[in-house]
Amino acid sequence: MVSYLERIDSPQDLKRMTREELKGLAAELRSAIVARVDAIGGHLGSNLGAVEAEIALHYVFDAPKDKIVFDVSHQCYVHKALTGRRGILEEGNYRDYVGFTDYRESVYDHFSVGHTSTSVSLASGLAKARDLRGSSENVIAFIGDGSLSGGIAFEGLDYVAELGTNFIVVFNDNEMSIAEPHGGIYRNLSELRRTNGACEQNLFRAIGLDYMYVEGGNDIDALVDAFTKVKDIDHPIVVHIHTEKGLGSDWAVKDKEPGHYGQPKSFKPSGVKGSNEYTRDFLEAKMAADPTVCVINAATPSAFGMNRAWREKMGSQFVDVGIAEEHAIAMISGMARGGAKPVYAIYGTFLQRTFDQLMQEFALNMSPAVILVLDAGIGTGDVTHNGTQIGSMLATIPNIRAFAPSNLNDYFALLDWAIEQTDYPVVIHVPAAVCKDDAAIDPAHADTYQIMRHGRRVALIGFGNKFRLAAAVAEGLRADGITATLIDPVIYSAVDTVTLDSLRSDHDIVVTIEDNQKDGGYGEKIAAYFGPTDMKVLTYGAAKEYVTNEPYQEVMKRYRLTEEQILEDIRRLL
Amino acid sequence: MVSYLERIDSPQDLKRMTREELKGLAAELRSAIVARVDAIGGHLGSNLGAVEAEIALHYVFDAPKDKIVFDVSHQCYVHKALTGRRGILEEGNYRDYVGFTDYRESVYDHFSVGHTSTSVSLASGLAKARDLRGSSENVIAFIGDGSLSGGIAFEGLDYVAELGTNFIVVFNDNEMSIAEPHGGIYRNLSELRRTNGACEQNLFRAIGLDYMYVEGGNDIDALVDAFTKVKDIDHPIVVHIHTEKGLGSDWAVKDKEPGHYGQPKSFKPSGVKGSNEYTRDFLEAKMAADPTVCVINAATPSAFGMNRAWREKMGSQFVDVGIAEEHAIAMISGMARGGAKPVYAIYGTFLQRTFDQLMQEFALNMSPAVILVLDAGIGTGDVTHNGTQIGSMLATIPNIRAFAPSNLNDYFALLDWAIEQTDYPVVIHVPAAVCKDDAAIDPAHADTYQIMRHGRRVALIGFGNKFRLAAAVAEGLRADGITATLIDPVIYSAVDTVTLDSLRSDHDIVVTIEDNQKDGGYGEKIAAYFGPTDMKVLTYGAAKEYVTNEPYQEVMKRYRLTEEQILEDIRRLL
Repeated sequence: MVSYLERIDSPQDLKRMTREELKGLAAELRSAIVARVDAIGGHLGSNLGAVEAEIALHYVFDAPKDKIVFDVSHQCYVHKALTGRRGILEEGNYRDYVGFTDYRESVYDHFSVGHTSTSVSLASGLAKARDLRGSSENVIAFIGDGSLSGGIAFEGLDYVAELGTNFIVVFNDNEMSIAEPHGGIYRNLSELRRTNGACEQNLFRAIGLDYMYVEGGNDIDALVDAFTKVKDIDHPIVVHIHTEKGLGSDWAVKDKEPGHYGQPKSFKPSGVKGSNEYTRDFLEAKMAADPTVCVINAATPSAFGMNRAWREKMGSQFVDVGIAEEHAIAMISGMARGGAKPVYAIYGTFLQRTFDQLMQEFALNMSPAVILVLDAGIGTGDVTHNGTQIGSMLATIPNIRAFAPSNLNDYFALLDWAIEQTDYPVVIHVPAAVCKDDAAIDPAHADTYQIMRHGRRVALIGFGNKFRLAAAVAEGLRADGITATLIDPVIYSAVDTVTLDSLRSDHDIVVTIEDNQKDGGYGEKIAAYFGPTDMKVLTYGAAKEYVTNEPYQEVMKRYRLTEEQILEDIRRLL
Repeated sequence: MVSYLERIDSPQDLKRMTREELKGLAAELRSAIVARVDAIGGHLGSNLGAVEAEIALHYVFDAPKDKIVFDVSHQCYVHKALTGRRGILEEGNYRDYVGFTDYRESVYDHFSVGHTSTSVSLASGLAKARDLRGSSENVIAFIGDGSLSGGIAFEGLDYVAELGTNFIVVFNDNEMSIAEPHGGIYRNLSELRRTNGACEQNLFRAIGLDYMYVEGGNDIDALVDAFTKVKDIDHPIVVHIHTEKGLGSDWAVKDKEPGHYGQPKSFKPSGVKGSNEYTRDFLEAKMAADPTVCVINAATPSAFGMNRAWREKMGSQFVDVGIAEEHAIAMISGMARGGAKPVYAIYGTFLQRTFDQLMQEFALNMSPAVILVLDAGIGTGDVTHNGTQIGSMLATIPNIRAFAPSNLNDYFALLDWAIEQTDYPVVIHVPAAVCKDDAAIDPAHADTYQIMRHGRRVALIGFGNKFRLAAAVAEGLRADGITATLIDPVIYSAVDTVTLDSLRSDHDIVVTIEDNQKDGGYGEKIAAYFGPTDMKVLTYGAAKEYVTNEPYQEVMKRYRLTEEQILEDIRRLL
């Protein structure tokens, strides 16, 4: 079989190909994407839909002089394969490259990106710099998959409309977000598709941008023609291309939401119910009992096992606001003020986008809404999605009562209380494990630490998912003849000074272990509290750094977040 | 003279007035607004332009059952005066009420609001709660003054277009932001005004919203008619009203940007150049020397003394992106990657809106752009604008080199270095004072603390604007026969462990004093570093709380941030 891909070391090689060869290349790339995802997992639908567009972009434009910025960059496999990184689609080399663009990896990748809706703004900076430098390359932002509903995308388009120089937005319209798209603009986009871009109202023109529609978003000829027309254009334009998400995988085409990201073929679902599914079922029961309980999510409902059938069953008591995390925080604040009981379920990494709304609309307004944070805690996966800083971010904000329960009993006791109470803005980290304690916390006294065992000399305070590590260290200290005090603080938005003071009479060392960054974390507050005293305090947590795809256990060792290392440190200090 | 206002204890009294009386009331309110601002200062132009609209809203709708949410709420004086709070416009009682809406103040104020662009989202939550509860009141979001360009406003409109039930957006179009508005949408808005709302492209319709245009935004009859038409409407609609900002003050009409906020007549400009003006002049010189240096601001350029004439003089080397703080961070990250030298000047309180972009686009991408933060540090003014948490927020983020210089020499040495270097994302707090030191910091060694005086027993570390307090405490300790070590750390994104270790041999107490919240601040990191040692650490900073309009010195006493109290604490520990 002819391999076109093997002939491509850079986009220059692409430019020598005939249109027929480009089409052969597209077919080859499509199979290679499916093979890669089957082998190691990865973004399937988003990559498959953009194959022809990325070929056409690199065929027409002259990267890296011309600069292409990919939104979220969960569609960049073809771009990488065409720019000297074939390995990303070659068996045996898959892991040579990360699944997102990475500025450290190649001069063709201008940014490391993994959150949505920022490509237009990032690219506008490249364009502005170009204009200040007096050069004349093309700057292209490639955006789609629901990213358009994120507020910063609108801010970017609104700015670009005033730029007055070359700027090309390729709007990759595959009719989807990760789930179905939400928001009024999707009606206009649908009408634009239906009329071949000719309908009266046009969101992009209303923002002040020039506009071109390309129905054949998976047709290399149509794309090459369109991109050739806009190359070197002297003003900003939106090229709206209609693509099919998942094209090349029957499954990903038919079932676009799960098809967005594929698991490797070797992947076997554990069949064990996780804390997210327990959460979903708990919320379902609450909603059935009270029509004012309402679950809000921002474009990632499947993370909580809230699939399409479930969402439809919940009716108006479930709202997917689309990629609009900031709106969601202000909206739940309004819902709580209006007498409803909103529960906003969100990945920690995306909650970062809402710091200001948390500060102003949520916390300052004492809105008794509930935020459930998924994947908060030390992450060692993709650098753009780790939740290592979430606890520090949230602990900075006044008024919020923030909890990191270590087990399901405490978690559901708190969640039930949080939904029903009307006094506090509440944040709860969803526990990673599904272990259960004998008893559940009494939420009415959740500002008092849970002392799991009274001991002497050494007190271990284990925060959230790291409570079990603290318990293990306590066990380890028995070998030293020490019965350590073991504390599950559960709350992390405040320090329980009464409990801390009670330790002073018969403890020499307090050890804090948290599933969070040390900087701005829980341990520092305890260390500062004991600062003027004789108490020795050892604090454990993540370093303030970005981590990219490292084995979790190795990172834990680097942070001395293992039973052996913590015991070693305590013994040195005893 | 007849006082209409005296007859109004609630909107019910308004409803009994004739149209002529309403007009008399408008004139009276307008004079009262000017008098209030002349007496104690306040938002002038934004309140004056909205007088008739707020009268008409309360005349037509039935608050507090019908719910009106004001964006930013810097136009709420009339609303307050008509809802049982006449004092806000009565001499002698002005200070009985805050200048923004405050949910604690009245059932007519649903939220405490001071940041822009959130009214649609907040109100959408009230509407969603209404629908879940099964009631049927009107929900109104009142938005204008440039707030429409903020991304969350777009997210809110996009969501509302799917709501399917009663929702009224009153878009108060006064053709202004605080400065002139920026962004492509303002061309469409201008065209809508020119065509009486009838032009082909319509941003609101493109988002999927119903639409009505009212040219007479300061005409009570036109407004009452329009609001009567949309009252109890069964779907979302935008009522676009064209108002004149500042109407009733010749100055505020003629010079709309400074007229947005008026100083009291008794106010005498000091004539002394402040650090903001020094910053502007420094940047002007840098821009003159290098065409790739570019200053970016988000809708508040006058804060840096960058008035219209100055902005025009700077040409393409100055960019006001409008109310689009998030876009600005991604854009400067792109500019830095593209070889320009961007400097983003922003109020600390508004930088909060960009946490995610700081984490992802700026810091993770190691973009060598520069952010200058104005009014970072403990604030005791309006609760929505204090910068108390900024240092904690920024210190949470990896990679950023963040500085809080205590004087202008250090500040400009760092700023000059930051603009020219290409290695780090840099944040610098603009110092409050314009004092100068004898020497300036060497930016090449800015990760080493500046030891201003070597001493023994006690070391004082004074952060940013609180360095001078640390110096005063050091002086006070001379009475105890102690020559204290005095440190100006300047950098606050990292802890200089070498310097801290050097203190261990001949110091017993380290005292940290910071112009920031204690939680997540600088002192906690130092306390944690010394946690396992015998060093005693005293940390001073603000409590984790919201503060509203309290005298600064009283708040400092509550936080023990005075020379006397800190000396007392040290002496107790010695």
